[in-house]
This record gives sequence, C-alpha cells and structure tokens, in this order.
Amino acid sequence: MKVRRVGTGAKQPSDAEPDRGTLVTPSAEFPPLGPEERAALGRIGERWRLPRRPEELPVDPALGRRRAGPAPSRFGRLAPIDMFTVEEPGELCATGPAHEPGSRAGRALTRLRRALFGPPLSSSAVVYERMRKLVALPILSSDLLSSVAYGPEAMLAVLVLAGSGALGLSLPLAAVLVVLMIAVGLSYRQTVPAYPHGAGSYIVAGDNLGTTAGLTAAAGLMLDYVLTVSVSIAAGVSAITSAMPRAAPATVLLGVLVIAVLLAGNLRGVRTAGNIFVLPTYAFVAALLAVLVVGYARAAGRGFVPVPPPPVPATQGLGLLLVLRAFSSGAVSMTGIEAVSNAIPAFRPREWRNARTTLGWMVGMLVVLFAGLIGLIHLNGLVPRSDQTILSQLGRLTFPTGPWYVFLQASTALILLLAANTAFNDFPRLLFFMARNGHAPRRFLHLGDRLSFNNGLVALAIAAALIFVAFGGHTVSLIPLYAVGVFLAFTLSQAGMVVHWRRHRDRGWRRRLVLNAVGATLSGMVLLVAAVGKFAEGAWLVVVAVPLLVLIAHRIHRHYTRLHQALALHPPPGGTAPSAGPSAPGGSAEGEELPQEVRHLVVVPMARLNRASLRALAYAASLGQPTLAVHIAPEDAEADRFREQWRAWGDHLRLETIVSPYRAVIGPLAHYLEALRAARPELTLTVIMPEVVLRHRWHRVLHSRAEHRLRAALRALPGVVVTSVPVHVAE
Amino acid sequence: MKVRRVGTGAKQPSDAEPDRGTLVTPSAEFPPLGPEERAALGRIGERWRLPRRPEELPVDPALGRRRAGPAPSRFGRLAPIDMFTVEEPGELCATGPAHEPGSRAGRALTRLRRALFGPPLSSSAVVYERMRKLVALPILSSDLLSSVAYGPEAMLAVLVLAGSGALGLSLPLAAVLVVLMIAVGLSYRQTVPAYPHGAGSYIVAGDNLGTTAGLTAAAGLMLDYVLTVSVSIAAGVSAITSAMPRAAPATVLLGVLVIAVLLAGNLRGVRTAGNIFVLPTYAFVAALLAVLVVGYARAAGRGFVPVPPPPVPATQGLGLLLVLRAFSSGAVSMTGIEAVSNAIPAFRPREWRNARTTLGWMVGMLVVLFAGLIGLIHLNGLVPRSDQTILSQLGRLTFPTGPWYVFLQASTALILLLAANTAFNDFPRLLFFMARNGHAPRRFLHLGDRLSFNNGLVALAIAAALIFVAFGGHTVSLIPLYAVGVFLAFTLSQAGMVVHWRRHRDRGWRRRLVLNAVGATLSGMVLLVAAVGKFAEGAWLVVVAVPLLVLIAHRIHRHYTRLHQALALHPPPGGTAPSAGPSAPGGSAEGEELPQEVRHLVVVPMARLNRASLRALAYAASLGQPTLAVHIAPEDAEADRFREQWRAWGDHLRLETIVSPYRAVIGPLAHYLEALRAARPELTLTVIMPEVVLRHRWHRVLHSRAEHRLRAALRALPGVVVTSVPVHVAE
Repeated sequence: MKVRRVGTGAKQPSDAEPDRGTLVTPSAEFPPLGPEERAALGRIGERWRLPRRPEELPVDPALGRRRAGPAPSRFGRLAPIDMFTVEEPGELCATGPAHEPGSRAGRALTRLRRALFGPPLSSSAVVYERMRKLVALPILSSDLLSSVAYGPEAMLAVLVLAGSGALGLSLPLAAVLVVLMIAVGLSYRQTVPAYPHGAGSYIVAGDNLGTTAGLTAAAGLMLDYVLTVSVSIAAGVSAITSAMPRAAPATVLLGVLVIAVLLAGNLRGVRTAGNIFVLPTYAFVAALLAVLVVGYARAAGRGFVPVPPPPVPATQGLGLLLVLRAFSSGAVSMTGIEAVSNAIPAFRPREWRNARTTLGWMVGMLVVLFAGLIGLIHLNGLVPRSDQTILSQLGRLTFPTGPWYVFLQASTALILLLAANTAFNDFPRLLFFMARNGHAPRRFLHLGDRLSFNNGLVALAIAAALIFVAFGGHTVSLIPLYAVGVFLAFTLSQAGMVVHWRRHRDRGWRRRLVLNAVGATLSGMVLLVAAVGKFAEGAWLVVVAVPLLVLIAHRIHRHYTRLHQALALHPPPGGTAPSAGPSAPGGSAEGEELPQEVRHLVVVPMARLNRASLRALAYAASLGQPTLAVHIAPEDAEADRFREQWRAWGDHLRLETIVSPYRAVIGPLAHYLEALRAARPELTLTVIMPEVVLRHRWHRVLHSRAEHRLRAALRALPGVVVTSVPVHVAE
Repeated sequence: MKVRRVGTGAKQPSDAEPDRGTLVTPSAEFPPLGPEERAALGRIGERWRLPRRPEELPVDPALGRRRAGPAPSRFGRLAPIDMFTVEEPGELCATGPAHEPGSRAGRALTRLRRALFGPPLSSSAVVYERMRKLVALPILSSDLLSSVAYGPEAMLAVLVLAGSGALGLSLPLAAVLVVLMIAVGLSYRQTVPAYPHGAGSYIVAGDNLGTTAGLTAAAGLMLDYVLTVSVSIAAGVSAITSAMPRAAPATVLLGVLVIAVLLAGNLRGVRTAGNIFVLPTYAFVAALLAVLVVGYARAAGRGFVPVPPPPVPATQGLGLLLVLRAFSSGAVSMTGIEAVSNAIPAFRPREWRNARTTLGWMVGMLVVLFAGLIGLIHLNGLVPRSDQTILSQLGRLTFPTGPWYVFLQASTALILLLAANTAFNDFPRLLFFMARNGHAPRRFLHLGDRLSFNNGLVALAIAAALIFVAFGGHTVSLIPLYAVGVFLAFTLSQAGMVVHWRRHRDRGWRRRLVLNAVGATLSGMVLLVAAVGKFAEGAWLVVVAVPLLVLIAHRIHRHYTRLHQALALHPPPGGTAPSAGPSAPGGSAEGEELPQEVRHLVVVPMARLNRASLRALAYAASLGQPTLAVHIAPEDAEADRFREQWRAWGDHLRLETIVSPYRAVIGPLAHYLEALRAARPELTLTVIMPEVVLRHRWHRVLHSRAEHRLRAALRALPGVVVTSVPVHVAE
C-alpha cells in the first residue's frame, strides 16, 4: 500500500511527524514525538537522579501472574483481575468488563448504550470495517443521485421566468452541465489515486494551495454537510406530509426523529448503517430508469416529436444573468459528487482503486439520469408547477395509475431522507482530518466504541437539528445556499490538483493538468454565478460564515500550536547546579524539573479535627517531607481553642493558625500559600486536603464543598500541587 | 450576662458541647470536640511516629517577621506579605486584601459587591451590630402592626355573611381578641427572660416538648416567613397599582424588584437595613392614631351614639362555626407578635431586658390600634366593601379631603411592603439555630461579609420571589394560609413554656404556668379553628407542608449525625502492630491511620511525554516512594511506540502499558488501580496527574479534560489519593 505524506499540516510547526498519512487510526490521539523532542527527552533522562533509591514496588503491576482469589471491591465486580490479560512483560490488555464505569447509574447507561449501538468493537477491527463497492455505491451516491430529484426542476423554474419559449434553452444548458459533470468527475477520478488515503477538498487544497485555501474548502464543505442534512430531511418530510396532510403538524418532530435515527444508525458503525441504505438508493435508480425507458419508448412511438409546452407569460427578459442563474441552479444536481474522494479509507483495499471505480459508476448514473430526465421533460413539454414536482408530473404521465407511481414517489422521498446519510459519513471524517492538523477540537480524533467518530456525528446531528428546528422544518428555501459551499470546495480542490501536477510532473501530467484546469475553471464560474446571482437569496450567509469558520479554525490551530510549544520538551540547561534561588514564578518554575531538584513543603489545611482530617495529616506526614498544618479561624477565640486541641493531640507537626476576621477561608489560604512561595520561590507546595466522599449525590447540598472551591482557587497559583485524600463514609 | 444551656440539640448524640448557648457567633461553624473525642485525640497522638524526622521547614511560616521586598506574583498583588499581620507566635491575622479572589473577574465581582453591600465587617464587630430599642421597635413591629391593616377587615368580612345585624358581634369578639393578644403578649414576655439568647418557638418548643415539636414550630414559622414576604409585598404592590392603574402590568416585576431591594438592604447588615425602615412604621402609627383621635373626638361630639350600618342581606346563618371563623380571621392581626423573641440577640445589651420592653410597647400599640379601629368602625357603622378597604373608608370619613388621607394610604402601602422585612430578620436566624442543631444545611451557619446570614437571606428571597411569580403577584388570597403556621408556632411555644415552669419551679412558677397555659389554650383553639375552618381555602397546603419540612429536617439531622459518627475520632486499637493484612475495603481501611502505617504506591498515568507529564513524573519520583508509570494505549502499535520512547528517556521508573482495545481510558485505569488495591489492600495508592492550566476558560472546550473525568471516576475508589500537578501555560 502506497503511503504518501499529505495533509495541510506540513507547514505547521506543531506537526513534526512526517509519516502518519491520512489513515484513520485510533493512535491519532497520541502523536509521537518529533526528533528534537526525542533528543531532549534523552538529555533529560540522563540527568534524572532519584533522590533516594525507591524500594521495590510493593505489588506486582503485571496483575495477571498473581491470580489470587476474587477480592471484594466497591468499584466493580468481585474479580477485577479478570479484567486484564497479560500480553507480554510490562503490557496488559484490558478486556470488555474493564470499560464499565463504577457507579450503578453509569453501568445502566452503558447497558442502554450497548443495546442501542451494539457491543464495542476492538481497535484491531478498524481495517475490517470497510465497505464493498456495491454497498459503498448506494451509501455515497444517495446525496448525488437525490439531487436529480430537484436539480432539473430548479433549472427549469428559472428559465420559465422568461416564458415557456425559453424552456428550449434547457437542452443546451443540460449539455453544458453534462460536460461539467464529466469534467468534474474526471477531475476527481484523477485525484483519487493521487491521494489514496483521502482526497477531500480540504486535504488537496490545503496541500497545494496553502492552509487557508484548505480551510476555506473545509468550511464550505462543513456548511454543505450540515445544510444537506437539514435540507434533505426537510424535503423528505415534506414529501411525506404532502402525501399524508394529517402528519403536517408533526413536521419538526418527524425531522428531529429522522435525524436521531440517522445518528443512531451511524453510531452503530459504518457498515451497519450502510446496509440500511442499500435498498432505497437502488430502488430510486430503478424507478427513474423505468420512467426513462417507458417515456422514451412512447416518444419513439410518435417519432420523437416534442409536445409543445403550454404557453406561460414571461415575467423577466431572457438576459445573460437569467441563463447563468438557471445554469447554476441546475448545477445543484452535482452536489454530492465529492463524497467518494473523502471516503476513500472506508473502502476495502485497494481503497483508491475501488473508490475510483465507484466514482465512475456514480458519475455515469448521474449523467444518464440527468440528461435522460431533461430530454424526457422537453419531449413531453412539461412546465414547473407549484402544486406538483416535475418528477411527479413525469411519473403521472408515464404511469397514470398503478403502483409504479407510488413506488417512484416513495423512493424519491426515501432517498432524500437518506441523502443526509452521506453527510454523516463525511462530516466527522473531515473533522478528524482537521483535528489531526490542529484545526478542530482534538476530541474529534476520538474513535468511539463502535469505531465511529462519535463526537463528529453528534456535532453534525445537533447542528442540523438546530437549523431544522430554527426554520420549523421549512428548509427547502435553503437549497440554493448550499450549492455555493459545494462549488467553493470543488473549485479549490481542482485548482489544488493543477498545482499538484505542476509540482510532481508524473507521466502524462500535462493532460491531467489541463483536465483539472478545465474542471476548476468551470466550477469557479458556477461558484461565481451562484454567489452573485443568489447573494440576496441567502448566499451572503455563506459569504459570512466561511471566513468566520476559517478564522475559528486558525485560532484553534494557534492555541494548539502555542500549547504544544509551551509543553514541548527542551534539553535541560547545562551544569548540574540545582535550579534554586528566586527564579521568576510562572511557566519557568514549572519546567521539566528533575526529581532531585524538587524542594517540598507539604501544607495541610485543617478545618477541624476528625477522622478525615487526621487521615489527611497522617498521609502528609507519611511522605516524610517538611509538613505544616494551617488552621483558618473566624475569630481569636476559635483559634485559641483549636491550638489547645492541637496540643492535646501532641503537637507533632508545626501548626499555623490564621485568623480571618472577615470569615473567608479560601482567599486568605490562597494568599498565605502565595506568600510562602514568594518567600522561597523554588518550593513546591503540596496542599493536602481530606475529601469526604458521600454515598448519595444529593447529600452534597448539605456541605459547603470547601475543598472544591479551594481547588479552583489554587489552580491559578504556580507551583502549588493539590492532593485530595478521600475518606469514604457509608452515609 | 446569664448564659443558659438551651437548644433542642441536647438530646442529639452529635451535639456534645454543653456551653455554646444561643449566641450568634461565627465560631458556630467550628464546633469544638466533645470529651470522648478529645480523649481519643490524645490517645491517637501518643502513637504517632513520623516515619523519618522531617527536616526543618524550609520557610518560616510566620511570614511577617521576614519582610522581604515585594515579590512579583501571579495570584494577587506585588506585596502579598502585607496581607497578614503577626498576632503571636504561630498565629497570623488576615487583612482585608487577603480576601480578594485571584482572578480578574473575581476581583471585579468583589468590587461590585463591596459597592452594593459595603465593606466587610470584622468578626469582632458582631457585638456592636445591635439595635437600639427605638430602632428595634419599628423593625420588629412592622409585621405585627401592618396586620392591623387587614385583620379587622378579615373578621368583619366573615361576620357580614350573616347580615349586617351580626356585625355587632365584632365588639365582643374584639374583646376576646384583645384578651388573647394580652395573654399571648404576657406569655412571650415571660419567655424572653427565661431564654435570654433567643426565645423563638423552635427553641422553646424543642427544649421542652422534644425535637419534633420544635421542628413543627420551626416549619410553621418558616412557611409563615416566606408567605409574609410574598403576601405583604403583593398587598403593598396592589395598593400602589390601585392608586396608579397604569403600573398594573408591571406587578410581578415591581414585586420582584421590592424583594431584591429588601434582600440587598438586609445583605448590607441589620442596622443599616433597620434605619431604612424606621420612618415608615412610625408614620403608619401616627396616621392611624390621627384617625382614631379625630374619629373618637367626632363620636364624642354626638355622644358616642353608633351610626346604624346599611342593611346587608344574610347569606349564611349565624352559627358557631361562622363566629369561630370570624374570630380566627381577626386573629391574623396578631401575626408577627413572635418577632421579638427570635431577635433577642440583635438587641443591645442587656438584650433580654430591652427585648422585653420592646415587646411590651408593641403589644400595647397593637391593642390600642386594633381595639380603637374596631370601636371606631362600629361607631361609624362601616361595612366591608369590595372596592375599598375598610381602613380607606375610615380614612375618607375622617379626612374627606386633603393630604392626611393620602398620607394614611401611602404609609399603609409602605408598611405592608416593609412588614416583609421582619421575615428577613427572623428567617435566617431561625435557620441558623436549626443548622447549629443539624436540622438545616450547615451553610446557614455562615456569617457573611457584613455579619448577616447571607445564605438564609438569599434562600428566603428566592422562595418568596418564586411564590410571588408563581401566583402572578395575586397572593392576597394566601393571607388566610399563614395564620395556621403562626398559631401552630404560638401554641407549641407556649405549651413548651408550661412544661418549662413545671420543670424549673422558679419563684412564682405557678402564676407563670397558668398564664402560659391560658395563652397556649387560646392559641391552640385559634389554630384548630383556622386549620378546620380554612382547610378547603388552602390550609391543607400547610397541613401537608409542615410534616414534610419536619421530615426533611429529620433526614438532614440523621445525615449529619451519621456523618459525624463516621468521622468521629476513636482511640486506636490496642497493641502497636501495624494494621497491615487484607482488611476490608471501605471505611475501616481509611481510618485515622498513623503515619508509620501508611504504605505507599505512587501511580503516574502518562498519556504522552511532554513537559507537563515529565513534571508530574519528577514530582512523583521526588517523593521517594515506590513509583509506577502507567500508559493506556488504544492499540498495540501505539503501546510499542510509547515503550520505545520510554527507553529513550532512560527507563528510570517501572512502566506498565495497558492496551485498551476499545479505546476507553478512564474505565481500564480505574479497574487497574482497583486490581492493584485488591492484591495489596493495605496500600495507599497516590495517583499523580499533570493538570495543564489554561489561561482562557473557553479554551477548555478544546481539551478532553481527562484528568477531571478520571478524578470523578477515582472518587469512588477507597484508598486512592489523587494529586494534581499543575502546569501553567501562557496560552
């Protein structure tokens, strides 16, 4: 398998590892060290001296070898040792039960999740969770093919504004669109083998045109995916409700329900979700082919003489702008063509070959269906009507009665609902790539129980559901919007390929460059026409949202880069002198200190003397470091009383009482610790607090939870380590 | 000053200290140890052995002596040492700046709070924050005297149901009520010196009749206080809106605003709040006295011949039940009479004498105003009308025109608004007493910045505002409700005094017993009549709520008692053998261990190798205890890679990798720690995690915050100590 270095991260300082490819792997959450950091690690290790030889471990950490009988435990089951198997010395492997949470509520939740989404899949199964071509085709093409259900109509609806005479223009326009489809299809076919591990617009544009271009393409695609979900589901739901008007009041509920079902299906994993969607896509294609065959057979019967369309008065002149708008409206039939290129790693090996074949089939089917439909509509002289879709008119004309019409309409509604599923495949994968480059939150790297990108799936479902609810399910008006995002991505991707061929100059690069340049130019023209022609209709939203998303992605990347730099390993400074003395507080005091350089002072805040606080005190003293107890008293009398109790206990440790006349505890303690550090900045203060763990969560309201507030306050202090000593009580 | 042992806690096992009295003191949050626990403390101390002699403290904890120059610090100011003054060896005193929080937002909040509520008051100021009698009288009597504004009317409104002829019964009923007022007043006068530090019904009933009786009285009073606030404010607001109908739509907003203003005033502290309320109360009394003087002077002019009332047809027969209901309605004039007895500690010394004098004045004023009004109403033949209050009728009759009528109405509206303030004085104090006995959440013990019970004040304001909003400001219908709660408390308090005299048999105890018995009997009758007669009108709510509150208080007490028992100090078991061996996990493994018995194993979960995790590792190693590093890997390849990096570092510490094939981190780690503990139950595991502290809070969404989730999961495990090593980054 050819692994090639790709990814926009190449120019970023935080991406130091050259060989991770675009494979989807659970290890993406743990990027390996770069060569410089590795060298620094060795230098640090050389200077490590343990302050005194620690005793041997009191317990064998490879638990498997010491299979004692099951011990009763509070957290999990009776035999916790069976939760791990010994792989090799120093390596255990967790078994399924080791994933169950400790609390009863957590375990119930886990059982529910398992019932809904299935048992967890092992990381080693990641390579098998791939799609056969016959399964991949319906999954990835539902978005593209479903566009045929509204694309031709959208084009004719613009043309008819110039009167029924202008409808004749649909044939040349369709011819141009078919050229565009083939050009873009060929363009993407070239991209697939060039980027065998994922050839999404984000990666191709970012790789060849720079990070911002890649992020712009990604932002366009992200908008497209979210809108695809809400728009397709709105169209599908309205197809249902126009068939059953009584269901209309439940539009929003139905849509959200469908989104939830799609989410659940995808959380179960790719292959399972795919299987659900195989039949409807093929059914839709079969229904449309039947319409075409029967329709053309009848037209052949009357010698292909077109029926003249009913006269419609012109409301606008037939200018260039109208034609261009009609063209860009028809171009929405192409949305979804990029699905394959993003999903290459989900194919079975060899991924790129299977993906390219699938893409070829998809474009072929698109061209046949689109051109066939436009031609048949022209032959039958159909005109867009407000009460019925043009596809429905064609269906009624072809199959005036009988189950075929119902089948056509039902499969149209179904494929619109399922088109949304393509977005569920691609959106999380795009976020994964972005997250790996540090352009999206890192949690999108996480592979869930079922090897699906749970966080990305949930994010998409929430965004789409919010838009769906915000528009009350009437999101069909958003259809023109999302063409802009798609063609933005198309244009950047193919322009990126032009640069790619210029750089690599493989065999036949000139031919390929020209092909991609044609695709980029055509897509760019459609983009321009769509953005300008539909600016007032809502395209301005995209024009605002894309730069905003790019800006956010840049800010996220800056945060991760700076954080990485701040946490990167540097070789220790020369010389063996300990870093004592008043060094500046803040970052440098918390560097990768060596154990022999850590100077301890243990501070134990004591509110009262009871089992919990004495246990914290005993724990602190057992560490054998200098230890100081601190008591905050609201008034002198209380301080005296506490000191008297302290003497009764034996005065084993130094006690400092702080009278806080204004009765606050957190502030004075934090300031006191800060003052201690200011006196000796090289000290590491360890604050040891007892934490009474209550059995019932609702009992927490009865306690002030001072240790939580103290922890929050101390978080801001450099060089202060906070330790919680839990004391579990039955109450 | 006579300090007497009171409080229902006497019978509770958790209250072991015999001498804390009912003084309000900030030390109430820190109850001293009982004798048994003290003895156990000494025994534990005798057996303490520090594992090795800790070095001298590396820094002098009494910071004041070492006034080094100001050191730059991140948390507070430049010179943190000035935040403490040295009181005596081992005792510091925090100054005002030491209370400021560290974050910028926190400091801004503090400044806002200071501007609203004034600078903090020192604990030593608690004794000076007392009320003079002339200030206490209006503060504590506004509730009682404001009842005169609706009490007579409530009685007449019931009587008139039996026709205007029945109105004549008002004079004998008023006479009985006056007797009741004097009897209850004398009863409470006797209580004040017997309980010089707070003679609330809760304490008196609990002390003499048992905890449940005390809690029942407290529940009745709590309901009364909350209802007083919402009802008085509703009545006051409706007085305003009937004068200015245009303000009617803002009723709810106005009421909530008034509650907020009352809350703010009380958060500023008792005396300041009192000063606001002096004038209106005296104005109300002056206005009513003017009405009485002018009215009786005119009546004297016509020889005290009563004007016959206009004929009103009877709708009900004049039965005993009607008379009793009229009586209990008239009795709402007495609500608020108990205010003084709860507030004794807020008086200037000698508190009880000043309180008793104030109570005498209040009852005298109540009797004069109540009897005078009933008499004048009778003389003028007034009948309750739906469009105008009877007080307003009387005002118009006495001062047909001119500013006096406006003055009367305005001061009535104002005193109704301010009556709510009495509840703001007493409700938090009642909760303080309950919390000290463990019958209410302990946070009600806390004295705020301004020595006011902030938590109780806020709780009252929220409860009253919720009721006010829930009823849309139309809470006048709740007036009948709250008589039930008040008379419940009256009856129990006076019955408690009967028991008190029987037990103590001081000089003249028989006379006092009879007086209290009469008061208790009369109050009990009113309670019975009110509860039965108004059951359907809403009294059932009180009948449900009181037992519920008592139950909750008992459950809270049980929780605190059990927790106290679980955390109480016990002498260590005999012998000096360490408590090793497989002891049962849970409570006993976390007893007040001795330092020499603690066996350590330090576990450092390592996700990746960077500055933060290496610092945590260095910190762990510097403790000199057996240390184990653990890495959770999502797949074998990642585990191998991590081990290889570990070797590059130098392999200074034992590393255990756990492959988690289902990619969870928290669960396997928690189960692994549990398995370690199961193998050696006497081990104390210390989990040391790095915690990267980000500067901007919103950056947290970019991180998985695994250490927080791990901390939550580990909280359930016994014997696992969690330590956070913070690493501050500039980003």
